Amino acid sequence: MLELGPAPEEPCLRADAARNRARLLEAAARLIAEHGVAGVTMEAVASAAKVGKGTVFRRFGDRTGLLMALLDHSGRQLQADFLGGPPPLGPGAPPLERLRAFGIAVLYRSAEQLELQLAAQPEACRRFSHPATQALRTHVTMLLRQIVPDADCELLAQTLLASLDPALIHHLTRQRHMPMARLESAWLDLVARVTRTRPPV
Amino acid sequence: MLELGPAPEEPCLRADAARNRARLLEAAARLIAEHGVAGVTMEAVASAAKVGKGTVFRRFGDRTGLLMALLDHSGRQLQADFLGGPPPLGPGAPPLERLRAFGIAVLYRSAEQLELQLAAQPEACRRFSHPATQALRTHVTMLLRQIVPDADCELLAQTLLASLDPALIHHLTRQRHMPMARLESAWLDLVARVTRTRPPV
Repeated sequence: MLELGPAPEEPCLRADAARNRARLLEAAARLIAEHGVAGVTMEAVASAAKVGKGTVFRRFGDRTGLLMALLDHSGRQLQADFLGGPPPLGPGAPPLERLRAFGIAVLYRSAEQLELQLAAQPEACRRFSHPATQALRTHVTMLLRQIVPDADCELLAQTLLASLDPALIHHLTRQRHMPMARLESAWLDLVARVTRTRPPV
Repeated sequence: MLELGPAPEEPCLRADAARNRARLLEAAARLIAEHGVAGVTMEAVASAAKVGKGTVFRRFGDRTGLLMALLDHSGRQLQADFLGGPPPLGPGAPPLERLRAFGIAVLYRSAEQLELQLAAQPEACRRFSHPATQALRTHVTMLLRQIVPDADCELLAQTLLASLDPALIHHLTRQRHMPMARLESAWLDLVARVTRTRPPV
């Protein structure tokens, strides 16, 4: 889904190249919002970002490379937010509040990028070993260890993350037409049950 | 994954045709146990069941049809067990005990058929709308409504079932080498947390 490992080449990009890349990704994100994933072609992105087509190919290789870069970009942003952003998602808030905020952030991010995330889901036998999944799992496990230290926090983290699976969010919101507010309440209720606390009022 | 709808043609099969079908499915299951899913070819099944290759093709169409029939067969068995089999999985036991037994039955069934279930996982956007998934969800939702009637039982059922996803069981047991006993305990603990009860001693 997301590639959240270190991006060693990023700091070496010259400032204008980095700006270029960001502009291309923004253009691609805009195209998706307007026309769905199908609307993202190398040509459309080049034209929307007002650069030559060759620049887009040079930067991302092909359309799949561009879509992966887009997910990667947003995955890194999420990771930066929960690792070092402002509370309650970032450090500084109590772990229970951070866990609540984490699920809601993931829910809304997935809802915004549903098509892209579904298109990028790895096959069944790699779905849970993907680096992006691992980064999220490490974070949720760490928070759970602070809230319910005696539990099997690794497996509870798997369950909590499974309830945020983009394919499930797609099913609930698009196929069964549940409003996001219901998914949000269900997340807060699930966190309360799993941690044996009370949901926030 | 599984096709759990009614099988209208089954009762019309002549007794020898039904026996034939069962023998072919048993042969295929044996081949999978011995050689993995890759070991299942139409020829190998015909030879193991001591029938002509034409019989296998006539009955299942092709290899995919055979694998689907195999999952379908075992899915129907599971469904028969939780709908009408002996307690604690079937009716007669308290709903909390049935829910515990349900997860353990699904866990061990998946562990036995992991390769087959992974190979048969539908693509992301159909994973949760598949009839087999729906049958399991209906059952878990029904049990939860008896245990925690005030909760959003539909969404809690989704979460409980997500923790039993064959792709997750594959990841935990094959890629992270967790013993089944740990997954079993985690299920009992999860049920206790979600229903705000105590795990069995």
